[in-house]
Amino acid sequence: MECFEVRTRSRNEFIDITETVRERLRAKGIRDGACLVYAPHTTAGITINENADPDVQRDLQAQLSRIAPQEGLYRHAEGNSDGHVKSSLVGASQLIPIEGGRLALGQWQAIYFCEFDGPRTRRVYLQWLAGV
Amino acid sequence: MECFEVRTRSRNEFIDITETVRERLRAKGIRDGACLVYAPHTTAGITINENADPDVQRDLQAQLSRIAPQEGLYRHAEGNSDGHVKSSLVGASQLIPIEGGRLALGQWQAIYFCEFDGPRTRRVYLQWLAGV
Amino acid sequence: MECFEVRTRSRNEFIDITETVRERLRAKGIRDGACLVYAPHTTAGITINENADPDVQRDLQAQLSRIAPQEGLYRHAEGNSDGHVKSSLVGASQLIPIEGGRLALGQWQAIYFCEFDGPRTRRVYLQWLAGV
Repeated sequence: MECFEVRTRSRNEFIDITETVRERLRAKGIRDGACLVYAPHTTAGITINENADPDVQRDLQAQLSRIAPQEGLYRHAEGNSDGHVKSSLVGASQLIPIEGGRLALGQWQAIYFCEFDGPRTRRVYLQWLAGV
Repeated sequence: MECFEVRTRSRNEFIDITETVRERLRAKGIRDGACLVYAPHTTAGITINENADPDVQRDLQAQLSRIAPQEGLYRHAEGNSDGHVKSSLVGASQLIPIEGGRLALGQWQAIYFCEFDGPRTRRVYLQWLAGV
Repeated sequence: MECFEVRTRSRNEFIDITETVRERLRAKGIRDGACLVYAPHTTAGITINENADPDVQRDLQAQLSRIAPQEGLYRHAEGNSDGHVKSSLVGASQLIPIEGGRLALGQWQAIYFCEFDGPRTRRVYLQWLAGV
C-alpha cells in the first residue's frame, strides 16, 4: 500500500489527484489489475467525474450541499454532519481498472479527492490489486 | 480487461447487464475473486438493485431526479449537470464477489448500467480480480 | 468467500461490523490486499463512517430519510422503495485496503451494515482480494 498527502484550502473542495495516481502506477509497473484509491477519513471521499469544465465540479459540490446542507437538522455537535453524510454518499474509495500498465479511465474521467470539512491535511491510500 | 457496448434509448435509463457479466465470467472460468464492473463515463454509472419488479427501477430513477433535478441551479452549459451529480452518487463501478465460479449476487440483486444523459452508445469494462 | 449473519431490530439501523471483519482477517492471515465487504440485499448496504459519536450515525440515517422519504411518490407496492433508493446511494459494498495484516481504516472509520427495510436477518459476504 502507498500513501500520499493532500492539502485542502476550503471547507468543500475537490482536488484532482489523477496525475499522482498515474505517477505511482508507472513507478509500480503493474500491467493488469486495479487501483484502490481510498480516503481514510469520515468527512471526505473519493469520486470520479469530469475534469474538462471546472463548472462540473462546482455544480457537483453545490448540489451535494443542497442534498446535505451545512445548517441541517443535525445532533452531532461538531457542526460537520453534512460532511459525514456527503462522505457516505460519494464513498470512501474508488476502484479503477488497470490495463496494459495504464489506468483505464474514460476520456473525460478524473479522480477527485473530495474535502467536506476542510481546510485540512488529508491522506490518500493506494492499494494495488492483482488481475486474473 | 474486457469491454462491451450498451445502447441506451432514453435520457435516463437503467439496463440490466447481469446476464452479460455472467456469460463473460463463464467464458473466463475464474473460480474465486471479484468482478469489477466499470463505466468509463461521467454521466453514467453502475448500480446493484432489484430486478423482480420494474417499478423499483422507475422509483429509483424518479427519486434520483428529485435529488438532482434536470433543471437545477447549475453553471455547466451542456445541460447535463444532473447526470454528473447522479454519476457521483451512484458511482462509476460496482465490485461483485465471485465464488465457485459464480457471481455471488443476492437473490434479488441485478447489475444495472445507469444512463443519465442518453440516448448514447456506452461502454462497460469488466476487470477480473484475484481472490486469496 | 466468507459469510456471516447480522440481525437488525429496526426499519432503519446501522450496525458496526468492524470487529467481525477484523476477526475474520486475523483468522485468514492475509498480509497485503483488500477486503470486499458485500451486502447481498437490495434494501441494505455497507458504508464507512465515524464510530466515535453515535449522533453521526443518527444524523446520517435521518438525512438519508430526508433524501429518500418513506412516504414518497413511489409506484413499487411493497412500501420499501425508500430502502431501495438508499441502497443504491450508499452502495452494496465497501472495499478496504489491507496492509501488514491489518485493515487500513482511518482513525475514526468503522464499517457499518446499513439496514433500510428491517427488522430482518441479513447476510454479509467477505471476499479477500490479492495485493500486488
